[in-house]
Amino acid sequence: MAQQTAYELFYWPGLPGRGEFVRLALEAAGAPYTDHARHPNGLAAMQALLDAANQSCPPFAPPFLRDGPLLIGQTAAILLHLGRRHGLAPAAEADRLWCHQIQLTIADLVTEAHDTHHPVSASLYYEEQKPEAARRAQDFRDNRMPKFLGWFERILAANPAGSSHLVDQAPSYADLSLFQAVEGLRYAFPHASARALRKAPHVAALAASVAGWPRIAAYLASPRRQPFNQNGIFRHYPELDA
Amino acid sequence: MAQQTAYELFYWPGLPGRGEFVRLALEAAGAPYTDHARHPNGLAAMQALLDAANQSCPPFAPPFLRDGPLLIGQTAAILLHLGRRHGLAPAAEADRLWCHQIQLTIADLVTEAHDTHHPVSASLYYEEQKPEAARRAQDFRDNRMPKFLGWFERILAANPAGSSHLVDQAPSYADLSLFQAVEGLRYAFPHASARALRKAPHVAALAASVAGWPRIAAYLASPRRQPFNQNGIFRHYPELDA
Repeated sequence: MAQQTAYELFYWPGLPGRGEFVRLALEAAGAPYTDHARHPNGLAAMQALLDAANQSCPPFAPPFLRDGPLLIGQTAAILLHLGRRHGLAPAAEADRLWCHQIQLTIADLVTEAHDTHHPVSASLYYEEQKPEAARRAQDFRDNRMPKFLGWFERILAANPAGSSHLVDQAPSYADLSLFQAVEGLRYAFPHASARALRKAPHVAALAASVAGWPRIAAYLASPRRQPFNQNGIFRHYPELDA
Repeated sequence: MAQQTAYELFYWPGLPGRGEFVRLALEAAGAPYTDHARHPNGLAAMQALLDAANQSCPPFAPPFLRDGPLLIGQTAAILLHLGRRHGLAPAAEADRLWCHQIQLTIADLVTEAHDTHHPVSASLYYEEQKPEAARRAQDFRDNRMPKFLGWFERILAANPAGSSHLVDQAPSYADLSLFQAVEGLRYAFPHASARALRKAPHVAALAASVAGWPRIAAYLASPRRQPFNQNGIFRHYPELDA
């Protein structure tokens, strides 16, 4: 579907974070968008919308997307919207719901990956919660990451339309999000993710394939793509990997 | 829309948990359903579906709902589906998306409430993570619960159709879920939730109103409604409340 005006994305500047899941969908769709996180006053613009007293649908937290009169928060809700408008989700209702279910499971994985370094509070520094982080990260490496990746492996292997996409035989926002989650896990937990991905070859193959989709390859090579860093959701602390 | 065959709900026996958000929607819809958690072999039936090797859309975790050929996991995805079929979500696309966005924010609150007593690992006992729980619960009481309830208060106050519902002027699954979340917070954190709810009078009023919807009042008085307990997502440990 043609998009008349450019989307506007609001997110924290300086980190890929959850905003990156939205960027990947916008880039894969070839949709024009303004990324306020890359503008000098982007943080102020984002904060103004979060605080606007006369806003009837204020988002709870970034990222959020403006699409004309709509202001949409929650990454999975944004992708539900973009997926439908840009052919990044299946047309059939059952498949659309399955795609969303996968996305919500990726969102759970992302939250748990974040909480490895912030198990007590997002408003404290990592250095203020290191003992707790060590224990939570161990559980994540030993139990949770393998469980999540094992489930993605299983549904890719069981896809009746083949294992090159999560849903049916077409690219979807779930493919894009799984790619980004795998990239994040590789950055944060190089050792533990390598072990887990050896048992999830379809997941590793899908991630490699998404990186080669023409629009995504162009995006990844552009200055618009931000590297992972120690301010984001996925952070590399060697002591949390093993 | 009429439902030909009964839904089947699969969830852990013996606790309301995330299954309760689905039960409330089914009860409010007056939809016939089999609650496998209340059947002697319900746990085995649930586990069989989680493990079925030939399942093309296996859920990652309970709860999940069978609707004819569909097997849907992720509470918010189940409610998206039930909301549309039973008039428990707005018809207009923008409102439907807003309702879902609210639900996803309630889901985040529920996860954070759970993590107050299990900040390290869901596979360890609370007694194995008490120091971590004390710190996480303090942050939840002081920062997160007030922030979430403050947001729900704000969107209720800002609803142009009035403050008796979260979205527009009709009951939705978001109203039901906020009721359940408030009930859970009151059980788990009687002191801290009372403080927070004094600053969120619209939220408290909505929760009271949902409890009085005829079908919900009948459900709450029935043996189908399970009380909160120390196996669930919302647990009352006096040392985590203050």
